[in-house]
Amino acid sequence: MLERIQKENDIKKLSAEELEELAKEIRTFLIEKISKTGGHLASNLGVVELTMAMHLAFDLPSDKIIWDVGHQAYTHKLLTGRKDGFDDLRKYGGMSGFPKRKESDCDAFDTGHSSTSISAGLGYVHARDLKGEDYRVISVIGDGSLTGGMAYEALNNAASLHTNFIIVLNDNHMSISENVGGMSAYLARLRTADIYTELKKGITTALHKVPVVGDSMIEQLRRTKSSIKQLVVPGMFFEDMGITYLGPIPGHQLGTLYEAFQEARKIDGPVLLHVITEKGKGYEPAEKQPSKFHGVGPFNVQTGKVLADKEKDTYTDVFGKVLCDEAKRIPSLVAITAAMADGTGLGLFRQKYPKRFFDVGIAEEHAVTFAAGLAAGGMKPVFAVYSSFLQRAYDQLIHDVALQNLPVVFAVDRAGLVGSDGETHQGIFDLSYLSSIPNMVVIAPKHKWELADMLRFALRYEGPIALRYPRGTAYDGGEEYRAPVVYGKSEMIEEERGIALLSVGHMYEEAVRVREALKQKGQSCTLVNARFVKPLDTDMIEALSANHRLLVTIEENVQTGGFGEHVVEYVSRKGLPVRVLTLALPDDYVEHGSIGMLRRETGLDNETMTERILEVFQKIEEK
Amino acid sequence: MLERIQKENDIKKLSAEELEELAKEIRTFLIEKISKTGGHLASNLGVVELTMAMHLAFDLPSDKIIWDVGHQAYTHKLLTGRKDGFDDLRKYGGMSGFPKRKESDCDAFDTGHSSTSISAGLGYVHARDLKGEDYRVISVIGDGSLTGGMAYEALNNAASLHTNFIIVLNDNHMSISENVGGMSAYLARLRTADIYTELKKGITTALHKVPVVGDSMIEQLRRTKSSIKQLVVPGMFFEDMGITYLGPIPGHQLGTLYEAFQEARKIDGPVLLHVITEKGKGYEPAEKQPSKFHGVGPFNVQTGKVLADKEKDTYTDVFGKVLCDEAKRIPSLVAITAAMADGTGLGLFRQKYPKRFFDVGIAEEHAVTFAAGLAAGGMKPVFAVYSSFLQRAYDQLIHDVALQNLPVVFAVDRAGLVGSDGETHQGIFDLSYLSSIPNMVVIAPKHKWELADMLRFALRYEGPIALRYPRGTAYDGGEEYRAPVVYGKSEMIEEERGIALLSVGHMYEEAVRVREALKQKGQSCTLVNARFVKPLDTDMIEALSANHRLLVTIEENVQTGGFGEHVVEYVSRKGLPVRVLTLALPDDYVEHGSIGMLRRETGLDNETMTERILEVFQKIEEK
Repeated sequence: MLERIQKENDIKKLSAEELEELAKEIRTFLIEKISKTGGHLASNLGVVELTMAMHLAFDLPSDKIIWDVGHQAYTHKLLTGRKDGFDDLRKYGGMSGFPKRKESDCDAFDTGHSSTSISAGLGYVHARDLKGEDYRVISVIGDGSLTGGMAYEALNNAASLHTNFIIVLNDNHMSISENVGGMSAYLARLRTADIYTELKKGITTALHKVPVVGDSMIEQLRRTKSSIKQLVVPGMFFEDMGITYLGPIPGHQLGTLYEAFQEARKIDGPVLLHVITEKGKGYEPAEKQPSKFHGVGPFNVQTGKVLADKEKDTYTDVFGKVLCDEAKRIPSLVAITAAMADGTGLGLFRQKYPKRFFDVGIAEEHAVTFAAGLAAGGMKPVFAVYSSFLQRAYDQLIHDVALQNLPVVFAVDRAGLVGSDGETHQGIFDLSYLSSIPNMVVIAPKHKWELADMLRFALRYEGPIALRYPRGTAYDGGEEYRAPVVYGKSEMIEEERGIALLSVGHMYEEAVRVREALKQKGQSCTLVNARFVKPLDTDMIEALSANHRLLVTIEENVQTGGFGEHVVEYVSRKGLPVRVLTLALPDDYVEHGSIGMLRRETGLDNETMTERILEVFQKIEEK
Repeated sequence: MLERIQKENDIKKLSAEELEELAKEIRTFLIEKISKTGGHLASNLGVVELTMAMHLAFDLPSDKIIWDVGHQAYTHKLLTGRKDGFDDLRKYGGMSGFPKRKESDCDAFDTGHSSTSISAGLGYVHARDLKGEDYRVISVIGDGSLTGGMAYEALNNAASLHTNFIIVLNDNHMSISENVGGMSAYLARLRTADIYTELKKGITTALHKVPVVGDSMIEQLRRTKSSIKQLVVPGMFFEDMGITYLGPIPGHQLGTLYEAFQEARKIDGPVLLHVITEKGKGYEPAEKQPSKFHGVGPFNVQTGKVLADKEKDTYTDVFGKVLCDEAKRIPSLVAITAAMADGTGLGLFRQKYPKRFFDVGIAEEHAVTFAAGLAAGGMKPVFAVYSSFLQRAYDQLIHDVALQNLPVVFAVDRAGLVGSDGETHQGIFDLSYLSSIPNMVVIAPKHKWELADMLRFALRYEGPIALRYPRGTAYDGGEEYRAPVVYGKSEMIEEERGIALLSVGHMYEEAVRVREALKQKGQSCTLVNARFVKPLDTDMIEALSANHRLLVTIEENVQTGGFGEHVVEYVSRKGLPVRVLTLALPDDYVEHGSIGMLRRETGLDNETMTERILEVFQKIEEK
């Protein structure tokens, strides 16, 4: 069947039986392909029928399907002629793991972060209506993404619509891990309720429990509430917001789904279809461990075992272990995650210190201000978060934490290039957005031991501090370089003359190679580990400028607003007699691919850096 | 009575009659004082009894009251011994218009932006419980602030609590202007419903309308819903989230409020008190025009007339007029505000083009992604927003607009120093956070005519573009300098030698004065209007470096990551033979005060700048 799907709408040519066969083939295809390339599996297996039903009920590309987060769009890609792309999924130059407008007309909106689809969809709806066009807009959002405040802001605005807008709530009772909060509990009640029977029962009970005259007003309210609670009120949360609720709808029955979409089309206003799906559906290992098969590397299809078990600790592992260790010593230490306990290395902490652990859902804004409140109340909160997701809370960093100089530790994981997740997930802005915030201290470790030392330092620092480190294996070279972490001080690694390299965090590993290459060419070269991006170690800059002709900064962050610019500004302000070369990422988004490949592409590999340094240095010497 | 309130808890010594008298005195005091100093009036008059009731029901400073936004904390300040502070309210060195921990122990958390109080309160609650302490936490949030997604993220998390946490929903049916969205409509229904009568009626009706066997599933759902809708379900939205709802409670009856707080204290879990207040209560002009008396300058108490009617257009006025003008020519032009139609100058646009105008509530994140959706759908959206509030949408700028290179115009108002609102409202980070975003163009006009020209340019630019301009009167000097706006090109104003001033946007006015002062001291001086902060006009920088010894950048933004650093980096990268001096705001928060005063304090007044330039230039010449 899959062979017969060459482009969008081809699916409409299939019979009911053929469609059933197609669903099976899609699952087999996805399991097969992802077992080789790696990628997002569980979420994609969960929406096979849902995606097929949408492709049957709507016309692409004129109708707009907008995926939230977007890592569940693989079936959508298959049904829109991108089958061959799966061979190079998430590889450099290959197909993205997320919707991309530049990849297909059928991808209406690029996504990657959570909770954006209703806002974007609402934009399309108003554009359609204002232009007098006629197409359908369908925003698909997971129950996990619904813990993000943006989704609620958008629902609040959707209420005013008088034309059709379809929101599909893809409810699998999970974000990446178990979903949290009041909303999740509410959806669970909806999901399992036998609404017809209970409705009758509830109404009858309620009728006999309404408040009696003579109660105080408050008492009346409480009695009313407790009687009303016995009613099963399907989707009243959404109805109260002004959104028509349809559901719950079984998410793996193609016919029922198709019927529901037909019904939803008829409504002149915003309508939410509550679709119940199962993550990993159809592949037993993924059904049993959806979190493991959320984003997964190559694995054995028969056993479900991931092939390349890592041998060395990642930076994330080191963070998680040291944090648990320190929690013994620091009773006020608490840890916060935004639905990423495992991803950020907090799994062990959650297990050991459940009362001191908070998963707030996909809610980075709340997480940061919540941390500020905890700190104001005397705790020592650590918010472990990916660099690109912390962007969500930029204002809260400025307004709620740093303004009051509250001692919150930000463990900024996935900083720098992240690889195959691509543009939306690269952590390449944090040095810029963090260092522009007053009172914020920004540090980055050069290797695994320094991460441990810096975390201990951060936990004892009496103000806001961000510790940034990358995805992947923690560098375990250079163990001998482990001077105590001192506020505002960089670390001299090798002291020579001529050229001085000032590397930020994990770029140390490349800087060591650059230095070796320069030495081989007969060039003496100093190597300094910056440690503090903010505040700058101005003493070190002054000292280096006295006996070097070229100072080279190396960071895996966009150049604009990054470490290099701050160094240059200082050198310029003081009129120091040294030339500065800033090596950083260009002012551009960086696509998916292996980190080595991306470094070469952006000029941050050691060969390119060495060449550029020599080129500039030669010009200086010629003067 | 007011004389007897010297510190917190003094209010508890008063009798019921005396309390009534106190409420009157507080209103008279606030009207009197604010009529002289200016400040937030309507919101403060609305919470006199609410604040008094909280101070009666709780013990400060051990109990924590957290105000959302915080501009309604004047009565709280009066009741905590800060009466004398009102003489210097919002003046440099005087009392802040917002809660400040450094001002009083009774201010539990600094605020200024919207929707943060539940998150911060929840932090305090968990800190209290973990430390085994015993105090009450009360977060006060307005119905306007409840349109912000963060508040919902926090409610979602509050659901899991098993200890007391009181959320006061101060519902005056307004943000600064009329409140919007489904949530607002829902609250309005709650507010006005006679829940007891309607409840009985509703249940009876519903009982007769439950679905019948034989209907299709979807049809059953719709019928169920339509019958259920006839039920009045008080606060089920909050109950569904897991929050106990108490209300609606009349917000100007001290006794009822006090009773409600006593009731709320007893609940072991999160409880929301829905309190109905009236903005401007007790002062007729403010009751009638709460939006005008939200933040107001000095006014005549008798007539309600604002004293200093402005004579000249503000930048905001110019923006609003030109936008209306262009809307005639560009049918795809639509305008978006986040609850700030009047503040951002969109009042006229709203009136003239209601269908092309969107007030999304206090929801900047949604606003930006909504704009991206509109642009993807073929419209030309303009999001008019204050600089400090756009911080909320930093991730959406990166992830939803700039990544897809969508043509959205950001009209960034209140950029630079804003004056009396102080630390939380200064727009001093936007050049840093905007210029680190790939694809984003950042421009700033030097005077009123250039704002018009730049807005026209931005509306025709095919990508994301931010136009930043300040609060206050638009500079109308230098009309003769009005060269066409050309992409990436700065504007030469006066060409000489020696020193070159490169000023960003409205700092042009100061730069002209600096140049005059330098000329008077016999120093020749070039003046360039930068126009484009991003991309940099590198041709101009190269040209200037050829015949100047000192290049001075002038911007009202923090230095870190700002325009100056980008210029320095370019000069350094190219090894250009010119010294650069970056004049910008220090790496710190800037408190409230007049803009002139704040410029002097931060060294951005023309006298200090002139001195610094001469000092550096002399050193250069000595070499």
